[in-house]
Amino acid sequence: MGFRYKVILSYDGTNYVGFQVQENGNSIQAELNKALRKMTKGLYIPVCGSGRTDSGVHANGQVIHFDYPTKIEEENLQRALNSLLPDDISAKQVMAVSDEFHARYSVTGKRYIYRVNIQKFVNPFSRLYTLHHPYRVNVDNMNEALQAVIGEHDFTSFCSTKTDKESKVRIVTKAEVVEKDGELVFTFEGNGFLYNMIRILVGTSLQIGDGLRPVSDMRDILVAMDRQKAGPTAPPQGLYLDEVFYEEKE
Amino acid sequence: MGFRYKVILSYDGTNYVGFQVQENGNSIQAELNKALRKMTKGLYIPVCGSGRTDSGVHANGQVIHFDYPTKIEEENLQRALNSLLPDDISAKQVMAVSDEFHARYSVTGKRYIYRVNIQKFVNPFSRLYTLHHPYRVNVDNMNEALQAVIGEHDFTSFCSTKTDKESKVRIVTKAEVVEKDGELVFTFEGNGFLYNMIRILVGTSLQIGDGLRPVSDMRDILVAMDRQKAGPTAPPQGLYLDEVFYEEKE
Repeated sequence: MGFRYKVILSYDGTNYVGFQVQENGNSIQAELNKALRKMTKGLYIPVCGSGRTDSGVHANGQVIHFDYPTKIEEENLQRALNSLLPDDISAKQVMAVSDEFHARYSVTGKRYIYRVNIQKFVNPFSRLYTLHHPYRVNVDNMNEALQAVIGEHDFTSFCSTKTDKESKVRIVTKAEVVEKDGELVFTFEGNGFLYNMIRILVGTSLQIGDGLRPVSDMRDILVAMDRQKAGPTAPPQGLYLDEVFYEEKE
Repeated sequence: MGFRYKVILSYDGTNYVGFQVQENGNSIQAELNKALRKMTKGLYIPVCGSGRTDSGVHANGQVIHFDYPTKIEEENLQRALNSLLPDDISAKQVMAVSDEFHARYSVTGKRYIYRVNIQKFVNPFSRLYTLHHPYRVNVDNMNEALQAVIGEHDFTSFCSTKTDKESKVRIVTKAEVVEKDGELVFTFEGNGFLYNMIRILVGTSLQIGDGLRPVSDMRDILVAMDRQKAGPTAPPQGLYLDEVFYEEKE
């Protein structure tokens, strides 16, 4: 089985079809497989991520694990990965972990952030890293509305209909937005998030912030359990998988 | 002649051969010409910049002027330009100016900044916007060395031999570097800068910061008036034309 390593990754998702290997383009996972293949002179080492990220979505703290055939110093493994991975993927931290650690099954929670540029014109330097939404928004109203999603709820209304997940019940522990330096930064924490859930929450929040919907809509949409009731899916480039939480023991 | 407008531009230079129109690829100037052509139903409107920026070099505050055939509200001109320009070029400010204003000849000074990521590994989100130089550098030594270039000097040693400028004498009024958040930020202000001058100053400063050269080298190189004596030309992606200065009157 080899020796298990946990790696915290950051990546710029702009040039990828997403985390997971797909036939229609390059993925983060494929780049990891390629790097590991070079390190092991041709071995295919399966890489397990904490979950998928969509095409164009970024990560400050995606977590993966894999079983490496030999024992290797964490620092050497990190250096080797970073020298073989393209510059838009970085191994921020490498830790030897026990076989009980699993990047996906051991997850206890995740934090996502979503960045929105609310300045009048697109900023050339943040165009790939924010949604541009050049409108005056009511931040207090958005925060009031987001209170409704905190707690344990069925998030069917905030989930892409393309999902294959049976249960839509999730616990959200944080849902808020702050304005700073011409940007809105949304933060969401919870035990898990459904397909497109953050992006639909952001799309709906912005409609509330714009005054296109009342604050009370957030709760009404949640109760309706109908994707049609919610707002649009915000585009991928503002979204970051910020951190993945695990139990302390590892 | 039309009505003269001054425009302050920011751009991400990653995908361009530089500011100026060239045969071998797309330029900022070509994109401006294209936008103005659309606005005027086919007219070619010459665009004059404060100076060139090289391939891959960015701008927070490049300045251009052009003569538009009709009088147009500044705000409308800005909106039209930004809707027609690609997202990596932004018209930050538009001002109607007198015919006496000239983006190049009226310049009294410029400020450039140069960003260096000194963290151990490449940061996916700043890879296109900084030089990665993962070494411990002595910032005090670099600042001491940079003192030598302040004032009026012949900068032959810090100028690409490919230049066609006759006089290499320039006045530098600011040359310093600060460290913050895992980055070095160099700032240079002066009445004008020679071809590759900032990038050679940064390349030389980093050698001093790394301890590969003594602090006294900066003055010795300056006096030698020989490009061979100076350090390497730092790569373009860390460099920003930050601001162009003009006399108050406009």
